[in-house]
Amino acid sequence: MKIQHTPTPTLVIEHAEAIPGYTYGTAEAAASPLTMEDLERLKAVVGLTEEDERALRDAAGILADQADDMVSAYRRRLGELPFMRPYSGHPDGTPNPEYGAASKPRFDRFIIDACTRPLDEDWLNYQQEIGLRHTRAKKNATDHADSLDHIPMRYLLAFTAEVIASARGYLAAKGASPEQVDRMHAAFTRSVMLHVTVWTRSYADAAEW
Amino acid sequence: MKIQHTPTPTLVIEHAEAIPGYTYGTAEAAASPLTMEDLERLKAVVGLTEEDERALRDAAGILADQADDMVSAYRRRLGELPFMRPYSGHPDGTPNPEYGAASKPRFDRFIIDACTRPLDEDWLNYQQEIGLRHTRAKKNATDHADSLDHIPMRYLLAFTAEVIASARGYLAAKGASPEQVDRMHAAFTRSVMLHVTVWTRSYADAAEW
Repeated sequence: MKIQHTPTPTLVIEHAEAIPGYTYGTAEAAASPLTMEDLERLKAVVGLTEEDERALRDAAGILADQADDMVSAYRRRLGELPFMRPYSGHPDGTPNPEYGAASKPRFDRFIIDACTRPLDEDWLNYQQEIGLRHTRAKKNATDHADSLDHIPMRYLLAFTAEVIASARGYLAAKGASPEQVDRMHAAFTRSVMLHVTVWTRSYADAAEW
Repeated sequence: MKIQHTPTPTLVIEHAEAIPGYTYGTAEAAASPLTMEDLERLKAVVGLTEEDERALRDAAGILADQADDMVSAYRRRLGELPFMRPYSGHPDGTPNPEYGAASKPRFDRFIIDACTRPLDEDWLNYQQEIGLRHTRAKKNATDHADSLDHIPMRYLLAFTAEVIASARGYLAAKGASPEQVDRMHAAFTRSVMLHVTVWTRSYADAAEW
């Protein structure tokens, strides 16, 4: 497959405003405590370069119509673990299909956003919002759910391994060369770690974080 | 290359006792606050299976004599970032070669341990020790260094992307098939995230973590 570079991934940004609770770029999103300099430093440590950003745009074209499957696979994996069920279902671990359906488009959307969104103040603010939605500050509020009100940070971090490791198969699924897959997978790894790192701001004291 | 499965990686565990400050399996290591059940849950979320543990033993054979180069490369990357230098050098960012030399064998050793060590109470305790050595609790103490006394959690997490992404090249460097490299890389990703996740226990309140 010849990968087309897509500098303006309009195909995947359209309809975003139709996702309930997806407040990216709006005043409803939280205000990030981070500065653009903080972000530049994190980008440097995570190793995200302009070349990676190009690779991410290529990845977006490959992942766009697989994001729904990816998130469904993540949820199947987590659903196999009884101790994880109360974070997405009801507190007793029974399923809550309404909550799952309400939050899924935003999770799908994260896959695409991680490949396409410019790293600017809107990005910082929405990552802060996502972080808060994993913790007592805002968990359940967006979808009026009754799941446990805090996802322990250790599970957020641990599951990142599944997101990163499983991405390779999806990136390879449409005929890109092994070199192209390597390049996209490394860039996706850096992007996901950047996102998750920023989400953890809601879990730790500023002096520790 | 035909990979030999090495169930007992004695080649890489010998001489460990000769590394100053490497207190793995001794009473000098910290006591982990985690139980074996906590660890089993983290293994499940990170997705580390017995098949991954076999892949990690294969990876150990490939990475053993590259660990020194890998850690040197990490340090070159970090050394390019002026704001990171005070965590490994002197507080003003000037180099501290003695500290670097003292801590390096332990960092090299981590690469091998991440592929070979059984996940048991000794493992839990030494991961707790490593976590503490990144924070005000124990940073600098082992090597009597004067670097900044706390590595912010965000940089620890962000740099994990470099460790994971760069591992692929090292795993592929000795002629394993792409399928073998995929398998080892996924397992290494899960193992590294498990380690780093446990290290973050030193950064957050138990109720958040």
